Parts: sequence; C-alpha cells; structure tokens
Amino acid sequence: MESTRILLEAHEIPTHWYNIAADLPSPLAPPLLPDGTPATPEQLSAIFPPAIIEQEMSAERWLEIPQEVREIFRLWRPSPLVRALRLEQALGTPAKLFFKYEGVSPAGSHKPNSAVPQAYYNREAGIKRLTTETGAGQWGSSIALAGQMFGLEVRIYMVKVSYEQKPYRRLMMQTWGAEVFASPSKLTETGRKWLAEDPENPGSLGIAISEAVEEAAGRADTNYSLGSVLNHVVQHQSIIGLEAKKQFDKIGLYPDLVIAPCGGGSSFGGIAFPFLGDKAAGDKRAEKLRAIAVEPTSCPSLTKGRYTYDFGDASGFTPMMKMYTLGHDFVPAGIHAGGLRYHGASQLVSQLYHAGLIEAVAVPQLATFEAGVQFARSEGIIPAPESCHAIRAAIDEALECKRTGEPKVILFNLTGHGHFDMSSFERYFAGSLEDFDYPVEAVERSLAKLPVVG
Amino acid sequence: MESTRILLEAHEIPTHWYNIAADLPSPLAPPLLPDGTPATPEQLSAIFPPAIIEQEMSAERWLEIPQEVREIFRLWRPSPLVRALRLEQALGTPAKLFFKYEGVSPAGSHKPNSAVPQAYYNREAGIKRLTTETGAGQWGSSIALAGQMFGLEVRIYMVKVSYEQKPYRRLMMQTWGAEVFASPSKLTETGRKWLAEDPENPGSLGIAISEAVEEAAGRADTNYSLGSVLNHVVQHQSIIGLEAKKQFDKIGLYPDLVIAPCGGGSSFGGIAFPFLGDKAAGDKRAEKLRAIAVEPTSCPSLTKGRYTYDFGDASGFTPMMKMYTLGHDFVPAGIHAGGLRYHGASQLVSQLYHAGLIEAVAVPQLATFEAGVQFARSEGIIPAPESCHAIRAAIDEALECKRTGEPKVILFNLTGHGHFDMSSFERYFAGSLEDFDYPVEAVERSLAKLPVVG
Repeated sequence: MESTRILLEAHEIPTHWYNIAADLPSPLAPPLLPDGTPATPEQLSAIFPPAIIEQEMSAERWLEIPQEVREIFRLWRPSPLVRALRLEQALGTPAKLFFKYEGVSPAGSHKPNSAVPQAYYNREAGIKRLTTETGAGQWGSSIALAGQMFGLEVRIYMVKVSYEQKPYRRLMMQTWGAEVFASPSKLTETGRKWLAEDPENPGSLGIAISEAVEEAAGRADTNYSLGSVLNHVVQHQSIIGLEAKKQFDKIGLYPDLVIAPCGGGSSFGGIAFPFLGDKAAGDKRAEKLRAIAVEPTSCPSLTKGRYTYDFGDASGFTPMMKMYTLGHDFVPAGIHAGGLRYHGASQLVSQLYHAGLIEAVAVPQLATFEAGVQFARSEGIIPAPESCHAIRAAIDEALECKRTGEPKVILFNLTGHGHFDMSSFERYFAGSLEDFDYPVEAVERSLAKLPVVG
Repeated sequence: MESTRILLEAHEIPTHWYNIAADLPSPLAPPLLPDGTPATPEQLSAIFPPAIIEQEMSAERWLEIPQEVREIFRLWRPSPLVRALRLEQALGTPAKLFFKYEGVSPAGSHKPNSAVPQAYYNREAGIKRLTTETGAGQWGSSIALAGQMFGLEVRIYMVKVSYEQKPYRRLMMQTWGAEVFASPSKLTETGRKWLAEDPENPGSLGIAISEAVEEAAGRADTNYSLGSVLNHVVQHQSIIGLEAKKQFDKIGLYPDLVIAPCGGGSSFGGIAFPFLGDKAAGDKRAEKLRAIAVEPTSCPSLTKGRYTYDFGDASGFTPMMKMYTLGHDFVPAGIHAGGLRYHGASQLVSQLYHAGLIEAVAVPQLATFEAGVQFARSEGIIPAPESCHAIRAAIDEALECKRTGEPKVILFNLTGHGHFDMSSFERYFAGSLEDFDYPVEAVERSLAKLPVVG
C-alpha cells in the first residue's frame, strides 16, 4: 500500500537553518529608529541574547542548528509530509496536493520551531527567565513548552479577554509550568498605568508586549521572546521547508506551488524560502516555482498595504522596519485566525514581495472555514483557522488545475490543528461568522501617522 | 542522532488483527440471557452487521483487515512508538520507557481503530446510518470521523450534561458531519419517557445507549456501534500491539512489561494481547512478560469486582457476559477519566485475569494527574486522564527498577491526548480534585441484584 505520509527519521532533521537574506536580490533594508538613524545590536541586547541578535543581523546562508535543539525537535520532528489523496478525490482534481503537518508538535502548531532555539540560546547566555505576550495562546504555549525543556522560568502576559475566554490554552501553558498573567497586570508600570485609567481594560497585544518587554528590559536574568516577524524567527521556521524538500526527494517530486498562511510571515517564509533558495541557486526544478502568501481580506498587509518603514509592534516601541504595512495602530476586525491579525509582514517576506519574487492573495473568512471543513471531512485533521487560509488557496489552485487539466504538485503549510479553536467552528456552523471588507479609511488614517524615515 | 520515535511506513500497517480467543486456556464462556439460555447471533443482527457478529463469535487467531480500512488507517497509522528518554532521565531510572502514541489519530485517541472497521462493515452490509451513545465524546467523535470516511450518516446521543459542558467534543463530531443530540432526547420512546418523568433529566450513558439501540433496532437502514468491551472491538484494537511488535523488532528490543489503562478493556487488550499471543506461542522473549491493566481506585472492577455473569450495559438490555464486574447499575464517582468509569471489564480481559495470565492495579486520581503533568513536562505531550493511569503505573515500575537496578523495557499505551480535557487539569492545579475510595457497600448492593446464571 502506497504511503500517503512521507516520513523522515530523527537523523534526517536538518543540521542547518536556511537564511534567505543571503539570496536576496539586494541587501535587506536596515531597521531604523524614528529619527532615521540605524538601530544597533546593542539596543537589542537588553532583551535578546547575543546569538539571537547575531542571527537577526546575519547574511550567512546556512546557520547551524545546535545539537540540543535538534534533540528536543525529535520529540515530534521531522513532521510528516502528507499527500491529501482523499481531498484530491473529493475535488476531482488532477493536481497532487501535499501538506506539511506542523500540528504534530505538543503545542499543536509550528511555533515551537522557534520557541525551542530561542529558549536554548537564552539558557546558553545564562538567562533564567523568559517573558512573552500571547493573544490566542499559540506562541505562549510554545514558549511555555520550550522553557520547560531548558529549565527556564516563563512568564506570559496573556491579553485579558483571551485569558478569560480561552482558559484551555492558558491551562496548557500552566501544565508546562509557565506563569500566566492576565494583561494588563499589576506586575508592571505599563500594566498599572492602564489599570489606573480603566480597571476593566480588556487588554490588547500591544499592552501585553509592553508588559513583557518592560519586565525583560528591567531584569538582568530575564529576556523577551517574539514568535514571528523577526528575521531569526523566519530562519528557525525554515526547518519546515528544508524537511519538505527531503521528503519530496524521497518520492521524486518537486512542488510547482508552495502556499502558506501569512500573518507576521514566519510560517510562510518557513515553508517557502528553502524552495526559493533552490530557485535562486538556479535549480531547474524550481524554475517555475510559485510561492503564494495567503492573508485575510480583513488584514491584507501584502495585497493592500504600503511598503514603507513602520514599527514592528502596535505600540511603537520597536525599531522601524521596512515592510508592507497597514499601519502599526490599525486594529483588524476580530476574525478567528488570530495569528493573521498582524498589521505588517516580515521584512524578508515584504522585500521578496516587492521584488515580485513571491505572490500574495487575500481570502475572506467564511471561505476559509468552508475549506477547513471540507479538509477535515476528507483528511480527518481539524485545522486551525490560520491553516484554513492555506487550505482555501490550495483548493482554489487545485480547482484551477481541474479546469486546465494540469497535474500540478501543490504544497501547503498546515500550520496547526484546531483543537483549541472549536468555538470558531461553532460560530461558523451557527452562521454567525461574517466576512470583513478591507477597511480603506482606517488603514489610510493609520498610515498617515507614520514618521517618514528611510 | 538516535531516533526516539520508531516509525513504520503505511505498507507496514498490519494486514490481520490478532484474536486472543484462539489462545485462551479454555473456551470463552458464552453470553447468556437472564434466563440462562445462550444469546444467539440472530439476536444481535437487529443492530450489528453480519461481519461484526462473526468476528464477535470468532475463535480464529487472525482476522483479515480489509484493504479499504487500511487505506483510512494510513491517514495517521502506523502510530509512533516513542522512547520516553527525557522522562527516563527525569526519573533517573535504568529502565527503558516506551509509549505507543495513539493520540495522533484525528479524533485524538485509539478509538478510531475500531470505529473505522465498524463503519466499513456496516457500509458493506448496505447500512446507511449508524447510531451510538457518547459521554465525554471520545467514542462519538471517532464514529463521526469513521462515518464520514465511508459516507454513512451518524447520529450520536450525547449525555445531556456532557453535551452542555463539553461543547468542543460535540463540535468536533459536527465538523465531521454527525448529528449530535442531547440525551434524553425527544427522538426516541426511551428519551420521551425519561423527559416526561423529569424534563431536566441530565442524562446518563445508560439512557443514551437505550436511545441509540432503540433507533438502530427500529430501522432497517440503521445499525448501532459500541466502542469497547465486546470481542470485536478488542480484536480491532490489537493493531496497537501488532504495530508495537514490529517497532520493537526494528530496534532489537522486546518489552518486559506492557501497561495500559483499563476501562472496558479494549485499549489494554489492544496493546497487550499480541504480546501475550507470543507468550502463548512459546516465544522465548515473552517468557517473563507481565501485562498490567491499570484501573481507577474509584472503579476497580478487576481488583475488587466479582467474576460473574452481568449485563454489558448499565440498563440491562444486552446479553449477560462472564466478567469481572462491580454490578451494572453501580455508578462510579465522577472522576475525570470518563473512559474508565465502566462497571466491568471485557470478557477476554476478565478470563485472562481470572486465569492469572495478566495483572491489574488500581491507582487513585490525584496520583494519575501528578504522573500526567510530569510526563507533559518531560515529553511535551499533554495526556488524556485515562492515559495518565498508564503513565502512573509505568512511572511506578520505572522507579522500582531504579531501586532494584534492573534495566527493564517498559511499554505503555498512551491512548490519547488531553486537548479536550484541559478542564480536568484546571481542577487538578486548583487543588479541587479528590481521590475516591472503593465504595464497598454500593458495589455489594449492585452485585446482590444480579440474576444468577451460568
């Protein structure tokens, strides 16, 4: 019987991450401060360990994955590459549909791919404790897991409304030994300030980031960690595409299309960049490769945003980075794919998009859930709302193949399972989910406020 | 780097189930009606298809797994055998700890191993629709998944209190296309009768079984399916142990101990019986094999029950089977391992226990959660409360090895993940879970009421 799951052994876990910065058509635009001067590594050292800062700035093509990190990865990696044979049959498409299934990690998503090395490098630097923020909890649970694996204390500032509405993700973090606080909290200056203004403040990612950064900056034994957007996170996620390449080699295939959801950009870059690296190296098989980033119509940073310098965070604390953005204080509609509600896209993804080397498409919420349910009924796995975006685009491409008769090989990133998102399926089945248009005026207002630098 | 996960390819999925009925020291005691006459296959045909009835009665050692069933299995099977290296290190034990991880199925447990063939055989028999009952929802979600895979309608009677308190498992079933009704419902005579007596009736597994059986018995196109206890379910679950044997062969090891949680008995039988089959066949490696069924102290059917004829269900509808039982109308304490709250143990498990060929141990609730949290913090995976029972016993045996210095090979069945059970971890962390003693008098009252047959 033919395998639909292409598996690798632990010794096949990649030994190096791929860094697409080495293969960009022009050097990455440097992060700048609001006054136009370049941000320096020293400014980052209050909250990041040296190895992470070095990776963030690196233009080396290959970065070694530490052995201890690979030893943790083998708890669930290599993740399977799966042929979605039943979905192909349901669609009646001549296309071959494959997905890389990242939901096999204990935290249920691709996020531990970066959380584990971040915890490792911090422990190596003598750090005892990590702080981070989390909304829906995918990143928070990944850092909780990773911190436990390397003996670090973990403090997570969880947006208060999520803390109250999503107790199960919070419990997951606590099961792995992390301390979780509803943000705004009384533990930081920032939190106390917001609570003084409004004791009922429901919190926001911006406030939670500020609390986590404040604690990390103020304590020598404590650092901060971030789950997407930054270069080192995108590098860490390249393990997804590197494994997928080995898996395609095993069956003698190569994808024509690589598709992934795109919020901050690490799950998209993670799966697509290693294939784009082949293309940059002149690999014949990659000559016609198309990479498609899928974003929500309600938060379409690539397809509708502006390519300009903006802050990485909602509050304007970070250096400014050149990226496609809707404006850092733009607040996207409350779609269920919380991981895609980011105002911009990583510098690396943005520069490639600007150079015309990757594509982007925006899809409306209801169509993503429709695709997710069709996927679940064919392949069994119930996908996360973020992953449903990639499934939607993959199904659309497979149906286009049905029209044209082309037997394309389509790879998409199934970034996680939906076990902690069943309430969004509840709302979908109840007919109470809606689509959201691109809010032109709100975005223009937000963009108009940006300092002009670069 | 050494693999901690021992993987198999799809073509290594076993082609036959193992049936320990062929290797029992004496023939299985026949099911009897309350008047002492044997139950006949015809009496089962109102609710089961012929192939299932044949399996239920079979004494053949090997039963062929249909190709279409194996094709569904390859969506997640073979499941990994995992060396719990980090847990070994945390315990400081010379033992080698392995677990077979059944939580990789889309439904998150071992239950689809039987749901899939049951759906297949029913479709082959021209059945259009399956009914079943579910409490916490593990079996219901497995039948929903399996029904979807074979194009069957699925109707699930879910105990009303669970329907209301566990919406996410219900949503999982609905995502796979099943209809889920709170039981007692207005759809059946039984349901209407209970509702007439008390419109606020919170439901029970006994009532839900009655509703599902009533609907199946009354419609020619509808059958009923059961998720544990019966011989055919235990046979189907043998795929767990059969795969594990292949996986141990790959690394040149053989277990000294096989440990599994034991409710109805299918997850225990599923992993242990293929190894006991080796022992029965005179395999030298299995000479000293010990198989340990782990049950909750609050529902200790093997360690404290009586070996006698009792009904399989709480309401007394089924034929009587010879088994270790606490009495079919004994209501166990509300522990979180809902799958272990069964009054008896399958005939096969019971007969082997009575013959002294397997062991049993009862563990208290708090100790199981303590073990589950230690496991999660070592191996990442958050286990289901049922699985925590096996982990507890495996850790205790590993600590005994530490005392004696014996490097035993211990295999346990990690029957599922705890993603839908996080509220039980919440109560554990909050200190509001309790241990329950064995309720001697309630059991004696329940046993005293049994008709004496056999």
